Amino acid sequence: MRQGGAIAELIEALRCLPGVGPKTAQRMTLHLLQRDRDAAGRLSEALRQALNKVGLCSQCRTLTERSLCEYCASPARDRSLLCIVESPAEVFAISRSTGYKGLFFVLNGRLSPLDGIGPEELGLDILEQRLKNDGVAELILATNATVEGEATAHYISDMARRHGVRTTRIAHGIPFGGELEYVDGATLSHAFDSRKDF
Amino acid sequence: MRQGGAIAELIEALRCLPGVGPKTAQRMTLHLLQRDRDAAGRLSEALRQALNKVGLCSQCRTLTERSLCEYCASPARDRSLLCIVESPAEVFAISRSTGYKGLFFVLNGRLSPLDGIGPEELGLDILEQRLKNDGVAELILATNATVEGEATAHYISDMARRHGVRTTRIAHGIPFGGELEYVDGATLSHAFDSRKDF
Ligand SMILES: [Zn+2]
Ligand SMILES: [Zn+2]
Repeated sequence: MRQGGAIAELIEALRCLPGVGPKTAQRMTLHLLQRDRDAAGRLSEALRQALNKVGLCSQCRTLTERSLCEYCASPARDRSLLCIVESPAEVFAISRSTGYKGLFFVLNGRLSPLDGIGPEELGLDILEQRLKNDGVAELILATNATVEGEATAHYISDMARRHGVRTTRIAHGIPFGGELEYVDGATLSHAFDSRKDF
Repeated sequence: MRQGGAIAELIEALRCLPGVGPKTAQRMTLHLLQRDRDAAGRLSEALRQALNKVGLCSQCRTLTERSLCEYCASPARDRSLLCIVESPAEVFAISRSTGYKGLFFVLNGRLSPLDGIGPEELGLDILEQRLKNDGVAELILATNATVEGEATAHYISDMARRHGVRTTRIAHGIPFGGELEYVDGATLSHAFDSRKDF
């Protein structure tokens, strides 16, 4: 909008959302200001609240409002199983689609030296402490089937081997190059059950 | 996300955005909380600011931060021409694509009795005052080429006739049933120039 100021700034701010270009951001802005101001207020407040309350679980690095997430805090989960995923969305997908009852560890990324993402950015020092101390019997690698996801899986399996922990990789029923988060539940469940030593 | 609370509320709040379903809202939430917390903060603040500052122009009902928008406040615009559009996005599209130098009037909707949207909701009482007092020589109807847009155009042209104001309708080079906002500039400009008496 030519009016600039607050309208232009809202259009610009909406462009931080994935998949939202300038045209969509303008349409969203007009919708919010013209037709749904209550919703705009709720969204502003929900963002503020989430930023204040939500952080990473100190044990598994998934998003949570507490210092320990519901998985890490639950006495019902099998602590000898640890499943490595790239993002919290995949914790959700695996919990929903498979019978997995162990714990998770969320990398919040994948190794990508060119982007400055090394072992430390993925919390692999925390992971190594757990492999050393926490009685993990099987490490399940559920990183994505991409080049970087595979490289990350290899790096972590080397680490597990040094600590004598058995490592498995979920099966490639998942389309190669695909993002795990978008795979249908049946495929994901199958891939999970037919995991192999890695 | 199973964690509920602030995360679930943010996912729900994002669904107010046009075109955003549950899956996209979840992806946006994870992106904001995991990878772009600064942007989430900026978006929250931009929404708050826009809600505080942006309202409707008292003369033409487009979105603006002042009591009079830049068009109504400009001494350079031709006050004998008044173009009726359904939304502020169309003010923007016409200004960008055509040589139009007159004023606008924004309905912020279209007549839709079933949804409880009548003449008053569209500010037609304000429009009638302008037709009576403001020296409008030509009223240009640029409502969308939909059934409701046509009905709205007819209603307004009847009103204009009662006040002896000439009414024109932009030409239907625009695809029928299409939303004016998404038409390319050349088509829109052509349709605008070949407007006819209505
Ligand atoms: Zn946790
Ligand atoms: Zn105005």
